[in-house]
Amino acid sequence: MAQKRIGKQTLALQDPPSFAGHACIVGKKEGEGPLRDSFDFINADSFLGESTWEKAESALVRNAVSMALAKSALSPTDVNLVFCGDLLNQCTATSFGMRDSNIPMFGLYGACSTMSESLALAALAVDGGFADNALAVTSSHFCSAERQFRLPLEYGGQRPPSSQWTVTGSGAAVLSANGPGPYVTHVTPGRIVDNGVTDANNMGAAMAPAAYDTLKAHFEDMSQGPDAYDLVVTGDLGAVGSDILREFFAADGVDLASKHQDCGLLIFDRKTQDVHSGGSGCGCAASVLCGYLLNGMREGRWNRILFAATGALLSPTTTMQGESIPSICCAVTICNTK
Amino acid sequence: MAQKRIGKQTLALQDPPSFAGHACIVGKKEGEGPLRDSFDFINADSFLGESTWEKAESALVRNAVSMALAKSALSPTDVNLVFCGDLLNQCTATSFGMRDSNIPMFGLYGACSTMSESLALAALAVDGGFADNALAVTSSHFCSAERQFRLPLEYGGQRPPSSQWTVTGSGAAVLSANGPGPYVTHVTPGRIVDNGVTDANNMGAAMAPAAYDTLKAHFEDMSQGPDAYDLVVTGDLGAVGSDILREFFAADGVDLASKHQDCGLLIFDRKTQDVHSGGSGCGCAASVLCGYLLNGMREGRWNRILFAATGALLSPTTTMQGESIPSICCAVTICNTK
Repeated sequence: MAQKRIGKQTLALQDPPSFAGHACIVGKKEGEGPLRDSFDFINADSFLGESTWEKAESALVRNAVSMALAKSALSPTDVNLVFCGDLLNQCTATSFGMRDSNIPMFGLYGACSTMSESLALAALAVDGGFADNALAVTSSHFCSAERQFRLPLEYGGQRPPSSQWTVTGSGAAVLSANGPGPYVTHVTPGRIVDNGVTDANNMGAAMAPAAYDTLKAHFEDMSQGPDAYDLVVTGDLGAVGSDILREFFAADGVDLASKHQDCGLLIFDRKTQDVHSGGSGCGCAASVLCGYLLNGMREGRWNRILFAATGALLSPTTTMQGESIPSICCAVTICNTK
Repeated sequence: MAQKRIGKQTLALQDPPSFAGHACIVGKKEGEGPLRDSFDFINADSFLGESTWEKAESALVRNAVSMALAKSALSPTDVNLVFCGDLLNQCTATSFGMRDSNIPMFGLYGACSTMSESLALAALAVDGGFADNALAVTSSHFCSAERQFRLPLEYGGQRPPSSQWTVTGSGAAVLSANGPGPYVTHVTPGRIVDNGVTDANNMGAAMAPAAYDTLKAHFEDMSQGPDAYDLVVTGDLGAVGSDILREFFAADGVDLASKHQDCGLLIFDRKTQDVHSGGSGCGCAASVLCGYLLNGMREGRWNRILFAATGALLSPTTTMQGESIPSICCAVTICNTK
């Protein structure tokens, strides 16, 4: 068997799984942003016809999964495992979204890094021979997240400039043992990094050190820098976090900036859409990956990308108890060739 | 490569990982119960010297991990991956507990099934060649769970007879590629099952159908019944849920009862400890597995057990919105021989 562990913490997949299909569904605001043409469906109604925002978020998950399966030409019975998670307390958006699927499930919590985490574990499951087809899916909803993490929407609280706007969206991807690509070739799981940031309205600053830690480990393990990629995409560091991450690498003499983009900056137009530092939420990286990024790879716009969603592992309770914000980042290499 | 997928949803590990070490730590009430001699440490102080119960729960995690590593004769740098999760919103007990460990982490949410889930994924990671040593850990704390899921402790609310008592405890286990056993030989990941139970004070009834679904799939996939095991242990169905599960199998003409035990019934003495239907919480199955069960296997009391923790994937919000309780059960075969 070829060596699967490279360096400190990177995993090389022996027989890289292929994306059989992927789909994303978003809300109205996301549908008005720069990536509008990359989404499979844009909902004008924030409730999706449901009675609550939480149920609407589960509907996003159901719809994203249905579309990803349809595009994969697979039925739920063909899928051996699903890896899923979201931001809501007890991850109910995805568990209720997958409730009627009958697919064996592993529930995850990686905050906004969950799309990387689910994709990584789905890839390991397929490569390890434990699934022919594995599904990765995650979601977020602005309205369910705001009232749970911050304040009731009706309160109309002001948001500081460093804050980010939770994306209403879900992305789902099916990985299969065989297929024409794009392929997941490497995974670098992240360690928790906590540099002491306590401002829950500045998650970009809290997460940037985690992105730096994982990307640095990935580059060292692979003996390659950002130059080896057409694109290095972080999850949702936003403007504040992206600047910090680029500065960390610049201080090492590494030019990340020319290859770096951030899902939180890609999904909204900050000049016209009033999202302050950018987009965030599990659904941000998920809907950018499962539309814009994977479509672009299929079109040959990029051949090798490093997808590194970032998560802030705080809760309202830990913030109220004066804790700083532990963060994590999981990196996944996606390549048009094995 | 030998067939890793058996039947509908069971996974057979090609080179079964071995338990290198395991440890559990509990609270005062658990330390007064029938399993008192199996715990590595019993805390008289529910705060563990911390300022909040949430921080105390993270301390349980830290201590369980330290003890499991010490008993494995491993340091944190020897561990390639940790799979962990808990009941708190955004799974902060384990993420804060693992914050300073520097071990690459996959965060999970499987409610009270999390010990099965983390053990299953750790086993797949080691068997797949992605880790030499992988850690599975989970926790719960009566006081942090009560105030989050139910009512402030100070309120002194009455509990109905079908309710269960959240265990204060954490269990951690290290799986290694090589070792003398016990081994994880099979994993049956569970599907979500929701039979329409809406009473959040009767989680045993909500979870029993999920346990039935996974155990039935496991027995069918393996072409074996309960007789093939020295013990079939569910997570925390308690008295109500255990009766339902046994009746389901009895209706199929299968005698589960003579081989079945439940972690929620093992950990407390219901006659003297006032826990109504039994124990519950991620820490219940975890601390019973990482003490009583694995110690018993090492002593030759049992040679082959099926460990099937169950989880109720509800949240206070879904209950308030009138939803029923989706449940899940993941089963793991543990054997003294490969």
